[in-house]
Amino acid sequence: MRCLVLGGGGFLGSHLCDALLAAGHAVRVFDRPNLVRYRSFNLDEKIEWIEGDFVDREQVAKALSGCDVVYHLISTTLPRSSNDNPVYDIESNVVSTLHLLEAAKRHKVAKFVFCSSGGTIYGVPQENPPIKESHPTEPICSYGIGKLAIEKYLHLFHLLHGIDYCIFRLANPYGERQRPATAQGAVAVFLDKALRNETIEIWGDGSVIRDYLYVGDAVSALTRALTYEGRRGIFNIGSGSGLSLNDILGAIEDLIGSPVRTTYLPGRAFDVPVSVLDISKASEHLDWRPKVSFVEGLSRTAQWLRDRR
Amino acid sequence: MRCLVLGGGGFLGSHLCDALLAAGHAVRVFDRPNLVRYRSFNLDEKIEWIEGDFVDREQVAKALSGCDVVYHLISTTLPRSSNDNPVYDIESNVVSTLHLLEAAKRHKVAKFVFCSSGGTIYGVPQENPPIKESHPTEPICSYGIGKLAIEKYLHLFHLLHGIDYCIFRLANPYGERQRPATAQGAVAVFLDKALRNETIEIWGDGSVIRDYLYVGDAVSALTRALTYEGRRGIFNIGSGSGLSLNDILGAIEDLIGSPVRTTYLPGRAFDVPVSVLDISKASEHLDWRPKVSFVEGLSRTAQWLRDRR
Repeated sequence: MRCLVLGGGGFLGSHLCDALLAAGHAVRVFDRPNLVRYRSFNLDEKIEWIEGDFVDREQVAKALSGCDVVYHLISTTLPRSSNDNPVYDIESNVVSTLHLLEAAKRHKVAKFVFCSSGGTIYGVPQENPPIKESHPTEPICSYGIGKLAIEKYLHLFHLLHGIDYCIFRLANPYGERQRPATAQGAVAVFLDKALRNETIEIWGDGSVIRDYLYVGDAVSALTRALTYEGRRGIFNIGSGSGLSLNDILGAIEDLIGSPVRTTYLPGRAFDVPVSVLDISKASEHLDWRPKVSFVEGLSRTAQWLRDRR
Repeated sequence: MRCLVLGGGGFLGSHLCDALLAAGHAVRVFDRPNLVRYRSFNLDEKIEWIEGDFVDREQVAKALSGCDVVYHLISTTLPRSSNDNPVYDIESNVVSTLHLLEAAKRHKVAKFVFCSSGGTIYGVPQENPPIKESHPTEPICSYGIGKLAIEKYLHLFHLLHGIDYCIFRLANPYGERQRPATAQGAVAVFLDKALRNETIEIWGDGSVIRDYLYVGDAVSALTRALTYEGRRGIFNIGSGSGLSLNDILGAIEDLIGSPVRTTYLPGRAFDVPVSVLDISKASEHLDWRPKVSFVEGLSRTAQWLRDRR
């Protein structure tokens, strides 16, 4: 199949492209101009590379032409920064995705795969974790509201225009190619600091619990969308268990064999205290399970960070 | 209190303005230019009238100045037409409301009252009606998705900026001043046709069930927001029972004492088959109950339609 990967130059996207190529699919990437990330990782000449801006509907529509499947991994905002300017968040993410869906309708795209956010879409857990897909969706950041609106539009476009969809509510992916410089992703940031013997900054007391998923496991879920026979589905994709920030620090100390330097800063008001996803639906319907333990994934990430120096 | 009523020139809005004035509040209306509807009904000189376009953020921000409470009753789209252009729907409703919320934050508005949609926000019922507020929200039209996104943003602005809110998921209001010409509102449309002895067109077999609420009862719920002590809440506001289109036809025949002429057209694919709201939460927390029976409300509406000829 011919797959368009929106955001294929990023951390998760580049791994997805590798997996799609390895499975024999044709891959076209749409990502920002001057983005050298994926190219610096592993430029594969078989990838067709289109540079453009996601908010430019004409560029996006052109990229879609001739593709059977669209993987939409682009977000113009981060969970935290999204609250600074909700108008920009909605315009650049939801409205741009609606233009994309209109183009997908015209180009008769068969399947739309969307990376939603397991960490923000539910808000503060109203039931004991792990959280099922049926849990109420009460985001406490604009990022999560935008993801939710896009999910609803995917369902509407399925009903109105027959576009099949898979929605993956992803936990926090980590692993090789995650850039510590961007301050997204506690695993890469903490690990990089530890390897440099620099002080690790922790917001709050380190008890905030998240679901960390090795990037290879995230990608194996994403590629399952191509063989999934259901016409629509929303799936939590996570490790199935939670780790606190202090747990991560402990695992890093075990890995490198020495204590890390830490400093604890005031907590952030709208960090959800715990987010762990119930992955039994994906396990049952997609025959998917995460395979790489946190210790193993951490070790691989550390090796990659060492190698790139 | 000084209340801004966005959409105060419309059917529901004009009744709300009357009730707020009667309760001793200062009322400012923001509505479209050249909209003579409310003025033609009952021009009250005590109302401060501001004409403008809801998508013009500067005009809306100006209208907000000095107001304690905002009633947001504007929608630029209708449920059915919203699917024709979801981009316009989101831009003109959700983005415009975000600009309004940003202005409400700057102007330190104390309370925000939003008319959401009990008929579209839930989608196809997944439980036996009547539907509680906790029912999953799976709209099958863009109109409902936009209302849902606005609800989520009201909650976010409450968390981030302390703006209290009341959300009313309204059933189908009917009553005096509802314009039969706009083809919104089966009660006024059917009644007007019947009084003119014209043929009534019904989409489908007439079995579609909706919750019809007399406008005076809708308004008495909306004004409860001013005394509601909770800082946030989502309330279904309906009659608590359902009527099919055929039930309405029967009630009209009883009222006018003669058979109506009807023609049945093919059903519309994405009409939800049944929508009836559970109003026990509003009853408990707002001490509110609908008081006007359908027979009485129908009779009042018929009188108004006769008087305006």
